[in-house]
Amino acid sequence: MSSQDNRHMAHALSLAARGLGRTWPNPAVGCVIVSNGRVLGRGWTQPGGRPHAETVALAQAGEAARGATAYVSLEPCAHHGRTPPCCDALVAAGVARVVTTMEDPDPRVAGEGLRRLRAAGVEVTVLDQMAGAAMEANAGFLMRQASRRPLVTLKLAASLDGRIATARGESRWITGPQARAAVHMMRAQADALLIGAGTARADDPMLDVRLAGLTDAGPVRVVADGGLSLPLTGRMARSVSDQPVWLLHRRDADRARRDAWRGLGAQTLPCATDETGALVPLEMLRALGDVGITRVLCEGGGKLAAALLRAGVVDRLVYFHAGLVLGGEGLASVAAMADLPLDEVARWRLHSSDRIGDDVMTEWRI
Amino acid sequence: MSSQDNRHMAHALSLAARGLGRTWPNPAVGCVIVSNGRVLGRGWTQPGGRPHAETVALAQAGEAARGATAYVSLEPCAHHGRTPPCCDALVAAGVARVVTTMEDPDPRVAGEGLRRLRAAGVEVTVLDQMAGAAMEANAGFLMRQASRRPLVTLKLAASLDGRIATARGESRWITGPQARAAVHMMRAQADALLIGAGTARADDPMLDVRLAGLTDAGPVRVVADGGLSLPLTGRMARSVSDQPVWLLHRRDADRARRDAWRGLGAQTLPCATDETGALVPLEMLRALGDVGITRVLCEGGGKLAAALLRAGVVDRLVYFHAGLVLGGEGLASVAAMADLPLDEVARWRLHSSDRIGDDVMTEWRI
Repeated sequence: MSSQDNRHMAHALSLAARGLGRTWPNPAVGCVIVSNGRVLGRGWTQPGGRPHAETVALAQAGEAARGATAYVSLEPCAHHGRTPPCCDALVAAGVARVVTTMEDPDPRVAGEGLRRLRAAGVEVTVLDQMAGAAMEANAGFLMRQASRRPLVTLKLAASLDGRIATARGESRWITGPQARAAVHMMRAQADALLIGAGTARADDPMLDVRLAGLTDAGPVRVVADGGLSLPLTGRMARSVSDQPVWLLHRRDADRARRDAWRGLGAQTLPCATDETGALVPLEMLRALGDVGITRVLCEGGGKLAAALLRAGVVDRLVYFHAGLVLGGEGLASVAAMADLPLDEVARWRLHSSDRIGDDVMTEWRI
Repeated sequence: MSSQDNRHMAHALSLAARGLGRTWPNPAVGCVIVSNGRVLGRGWTQPGGRPHAETVALAQAGEAARGATAYVSLEPCAHHGRTPPCCDALVAAGVARVVTTMEDPDPRVAGEGLRRLRAAGVEVTVLDQMAGAAMEANAGFLMRQASRRPLVTLKLAASLDGRIATARGESRWITGPQARAAVHMMRAQADALLIGAGTARADDPMLDVRLAGLTDAGPVRVVADGGLSLPLTGRMARSVSDQPVWLLHRRDADRARRDAWRGLGAQTLPCATDETGALVPLEMLRALGDVGITRVLCEGGGKLAAALLRAGVVDRLVYFHAGLVLGGEGLASVAAMADLPLDEVARWRLHSSDRIGDDVMTEWRI
């Protein structure tokens, strides 16, 4: 209610963001324990989703948590998982007041956490005005709860005329080092990176996170490779043990190839196909959602981008435009989609526009 | 030298900008007459290039110009044209001091204006620190002086993936009304608008300036139409008497077609061609420069854009990106150029980036 509450909650939300990309299938939550204006404990969901933010913050605060206020960026959980529910831990620690932003839509929580706190005599405040910020922080978790698929961000790095490579296939580098660092930050906050088999073959990318201080970030690398045709000799295949590799493939893909990938340590996820034999975008995403992925960053290429856009399963579109023109021979950032009348083409809303080094980054949302 | 001087010169430069697009072949100049901090007269080069800014401002100031300071955004002219030179008019009016930014590179002036003023006992100050702003205001005039061709701005309004029309040819409208108004302002400040014959045929554009308060802006409409194949029944052909239409064509283009266009009141300008029979971009621009055009705004289409870019004669590149994706079937904003290695492709420098309505406008310079 007070500006103090908002300030501490903003703190909790910024802590929550540290977990993005590492907490799936759990949400990335932040928690701050405050007494008389002093911060006694801070926590955020740890890699793998455990311990929860509240557990970390309460451990830091120790006995001082008694009578204090806990700011938790999402409703504390109410169900027994691998650990006892956080609402019970807050009560046991003697916290007098819990401030949160929104209910956890997980049906095992869904208001039960707040009810249990109130029943135990804890004062509960829901900062509705922070719900927008909390929804932003939990967008992937909420999307998976609501739609059984992860939040999808499509990132494309192109020339001004929308080309992602020259005719001879050169794409390193169209954008500058600052833009590429921004992409590594986007990767760090993704649970999984998704590319098409054509790009995997043409670019043989590593899809790792190369940013100082983010050595623990290793999003799952997912290749949409219906026929499992990707060679087993690429850079990703050779580094499966360092950073997971998953392959989305047709149900009828060659069993020997599937076993070979599994032998390397990769996971293989069968997906439904359409009448042309192409993997169905929504089914690919459901396959990822079903195993817990909440945030996907798709990095192309043009065919996969077109398929996701045509299927309407892209939630955020991030374009890096570099100051060069490659012309009509260049590789299109988005391949053929569907020849719709102009007034039926989806319109995106400009979310942000930033100069990044010598390039321009725009983020668009539906 | 003083901040007062800079302030009055900024005023003169803003007046100068009012003439952009209307003063060719003359530069757009602004003039402010100031005495004891009071502005006594303001002038800018009038449509058609006459009267000059100094003449207008001196007439406003009248007798009060005696002993005053004149701020002139470009060196006052020293040659007799249709009217006596401005440096003599300033002396005759009794102006005590003239402040300017840079010498006029016109060989008939080239410092002579300042010398004549000094010889007559007028104090002359050149505000070097305003030379950048003056060069920006006079970029077209200076380009024509230096390179015998106009300044070329290439404007493209495209989807995020760089398409300027759907496969079925729809291009109205990709960008929103605010972006289109910004384009009309760009048109108003151009001496000539240039499009390719393909775009003229496909879109049948009017290429007029529809902005309240700018009813006198009517840039020359130029179509690069090597074979003079454009039908004589289009919107531009029907409005030649309202706003000029010029056609750039091959020397061997059909004489009857040429005469028919002339009969409508259009001008026809023959240009050199390359071995494929295509008009040579630099020759097209020289043809325009030779008749006095200093600022050209090229509005596509993709083939003309590619030809100008490939020839290295685009000075400013303005992209409007709208929040939609048209995919690989869409019409490319820039057609095939040249399959260069990536490190040999021209890199543009980001000059400005602005949100315009729902679109993003970026200006790039070499």
